[in-house]
Amino acid sequence: MGAAAVAWEAGKPLVIEEVEVAPPQKNEVRVKILFTSLCHTDIYFWEAKGQTPVFRRILGHEAGGIVESVGEGVTELKPGDHVLPVFTGECRECPHCLSEESNMCDLLRINTDRGVMLHDGKARFSINGKPIYHFLGTSTFSEYTVVHVGCLAKINPEAPLDKVCVMSCGFSTGFGATVNVAKPKKGQTVAIFGLGAVGLAAAEGARVSGASRIIGVDLVSSRFELAKKFGVTDFVNPKDHDRPVQEVLVEMTNGGVDRSVECTGNIQAMISAFECVHDGWGVAILVGVPNKDDAFKTHPVNFLNERTLKGTFFGNYKPRTNLPSVVEKYMNKEIELEKFITHEVSFKDVNKAFEYMFKGESLRCIIRMDA
Amino acid sequence: MGAAAVAWEAGKPLVIEEVEVAPPQKNEVRVKILFTSLCHTDIYFWEAKGQTPVFRRILGHEAGGIVESVGEGVTELKPGDHVLPVFTGECRECPHCLSEESNMCDLLRINTDRGVMLHDGKARFSINGKPIYHFLGTSTFSEYTVVHVGCLAKINPEAPLDKVCVMSCGFSTGFGATVNVAKPKKGQTVAIFGLGAVGLAAAEGARVSGASRIIGVDLVSSRFELAKKFGVTDFVNPKDHDRPVQEVLVEMTNGGVDRSVECTGNIQAMISAFECVHDGWGVAILVGVPNKDDAFKTHPVNFLNERTLKGTFFGNYKPRTNLPSVVEKYMNKEIELEKFITHEVSFKDVNKAFEYMFKGESLRCIIRMDA
Ligand SMILES: NC(=O)c1ccc[n+]([C@@H]2O[C@H](COP(=O)([O-])OP(=O)(O)OC[C@H]3O[C@@H](n4cnc5c(N)ncnc54)[C@H](O)[C@@H]3O)[C@@H](O)[C@H]2O)c1
Ligand SMILES: NC(=O)c1ccc[n+]([C@@H]2O[C@H](COP(=O)([O-])OP(=O)(O)OC[C@H]3O[C@@H](n4cnc5c(N)ncnc54)[C@H](O)[C@@H]3O)[C@@H](O)[C@H]2O)c1
Ligand SMILES: [Zn+2]
Ligand SMILES: [Zn+2]
Ligand SMILES: [Zn+2]
Ligand SMILES: [Zn+2]
Repeated sequence: MGAAAVAWEAGKPLVIEEVEVAPPQKNEVRVKILFTSLCHTDIYFWEAKGQTPVFRRILGHEAGGIVESVGEGVTELKPGDHVLPVFTGECRECPHCLSEESNMCDLLRINTDRGVMLHDGKARFSINGKPIYHFLGTSTFSEYTVVHVGCLAKINPEAPLDKVCVMSCGFSTGFGATVNVAKPKKGQTVAIFGLGAVGLAAAEGARVSGASRIIGVDLVSSRFELAKKFGVTDFVNPKDHDRPVQEVLVEMTNGGVDRSVECTGNIQAMISAFECVHDGWGVAILVGVPNKDDAFKTHPVNFLNERTLKGTFFGNYKPRTNLPSVVEKYMNKEIELEKFITHEVSFKDVNKAFEYMFKGESLRCIIRMDA
Repeated sequence: MGAAAVAWEAGKPLVIEEVEVAPPQKNEVRVKILFTSLCHTDIYFWEAKGQTPVFRRILGHEAGGIVESVGEGVTELKPGDHVLPVFTGECRECPHCLSEESNMCDLLRINTDRGVMLHDGKARFSINGKPIYHFLGTSTFSEYTVVHVGCLAKINPEAPLDKVCVMSCGFSTGFGATVNVAKPKKGQTVAIFGLGAVGLAAAEGARVSGASRIIGVDLVSSRFELAKKFGVTDFVNPKDHDRPVQEVLVEMTNGGVDRSVECTGNIQAMISAFECVHDGWGVAILVGVPNKDDAFKTHPVNFLNERTLKGTFFGNYKPRTNLPSVVEKYMNKEIELEKFITHEVSFKDVNKAFEYMFKGESLRCIIRMDA
């Protein structure tokens, strides 16, 4: 039915293949993907280091597309609707979906090991009858994909999909971590640990919130030039100091930053991000995904002195309920997305997107499905 | 000028002595104490284990009294006003006092080592010209004491001082931790670790907030009978289980409690209190004072799954600004205090209050200064 980039084995270049894409079943939607972009999570599961890997698989989870057909029970979407697939869904019925605070849906919460659809435990992709497995319920490196209706945000059809596709993962994760969770007040100081796409989206959230000072922390000093475009005003490289970076930040800010957002996945950065916030009111947010056997360790008095630590997942957005309005913020020019898009390739060159990210050259590389 | 219970040495019974109490200096107030009660913090600094002790000292920090005279610059209080002295003050000028969130005043924050007044670095108490040191800026085990105006809450003169005196430390610490920081919603489940006076005040906060289930956790099972009066509905003794108590709580509550408040000072209880809250929305609050070399340790994924951990100090109340309205809640019968007061002694028997607390018999023992 269309072309897909199949990951046959861990770490081997993807191969563009003609795949069958079965019709959507109950509560499923078949989507024609127009643009997709590469996120670190794709690379992580493609490398599959230290994992029980699920292969042959179609990767990809940051994308924009158009509904092609809908399965039984789908009333909210119809062919022609513009959608963003999201790796974590919203069933609208479980305690998390009913809670005002959580977006960790019991039914459609991120699942990195499942390669099949929930309805019947089968894959919708196949080549000569042989199933090809799904990834994060999205598998967007394909001209057509099948997604649970709860993992699709219906957005303004005027929104340019080649831009807003980055909102389906990285941008929203970082931006939401700041605006929904850290919630800096106008004039406050915000530290961002890790200046990748997620961290720079967190910085964009701080800029939009009116932060007066945004301190970027990264091990790679060249990141600072780029980060200036995102409103980052100060830069600290932990390698330039012979004491813990939290001490440097506390000194720079006369007692600590008001908010910090950790977007590295590194456990030492997580601890520093917490310990650098001001006593009395400081709030630190963890976003990065740690290793399995990392331990977060600090003196409990750091909490007692009225500091807050909190984690977030997809920026605390409920994808169906909240993403459409995030897209509107871009349409109203409240949010800038162009600066996140550093590269663009045609679908046949999908492996180049991997190279750009490996070399640390790209923030986001858009993959055009029609080219 | 009056009688005071002097702690001459660590761990030795207090001795009632006639002491001189110098007039209040700039920004100071001399207060006639009518009722005071004993809190664990007094015992801790009286025992002075592992501390650099400040002796001869007048202990006591939970009390109610009447202004006798005021020093230069004091405009807010006049002789005859009813006041609660508080171990942590509010200068109304520093960044913490100006922040909506913090009550950790830079000038008047708790200081356990200072035995003198800020104004001139001298003690106001003396016997035959020999200074007797202050404790927590309050020293309420004395008929007269001198306190910085920022450490006095002016309250409704109709409020019975023999009851509301417990609001000047223990009650407000626990109650505020729940209502100001944990903020449970109506119908939610709250776990309270430690059923001493602070923990039971935290339970009272959960009851007032409309919690549907209040789970008490304590190593002493006999605490449960008493705790029932405070709205505690379930009880768990970690010693009755051969797995971590957080697992027991998660199972009892189908995924975790909505809020937890730790009032033990025990590091293992702090970790359990955090790990027993529900993913997506759970909030855990630390109140207990840990040991110097304790380490709080957990897997960072427990945060990433949208749990929040926060510490608090004096229930996040700003003493001058907020305590008067907490007293009003008692006057309006929204809060019950009588159940916290299990014993009463006259001032000459002050050492009996220590005995009751040592034996774990009392929650609060009121010491009457006039008897
Ligand atoms: N919680 C979620 O929902 C969610 C969603 C997407 C991504 N993530 C995670 O967010 C993190 C960032 O993602 P990204 O795509 O921006 O990654 P990235 O690799 O592009 O950026 C990470 C940056 O952190 C820097 N860094 C690494 N260790 C550091 C340290 N100790 N101190 C300071 N800087 C350090 C690196 O130099 C790099 O610039 C990753 O851990 C990713 O898995 C989380
Ligand atoms: N943060 C503040 O502003 C502030 C103010 C006052 C008191 N405190 C602290 O609050 C804590 C409680 O004070 P309190 O006067 O109620 O003390 P308390 O000794 O009367 O009560 C503590 C209770 O905790 C229980 N306990 C101890 N270890 C436990 C464990 N591992 N699991 C479960 N229960 C355990 C004990 O059996 C006891 O019943 C103390 O640490 C005190 O220093 C803090
Ligand atoms: Zn759900
Ligand atoms: Zn992603
Ligand atoms: Zn106390
Ligand atoms: Zn102050």
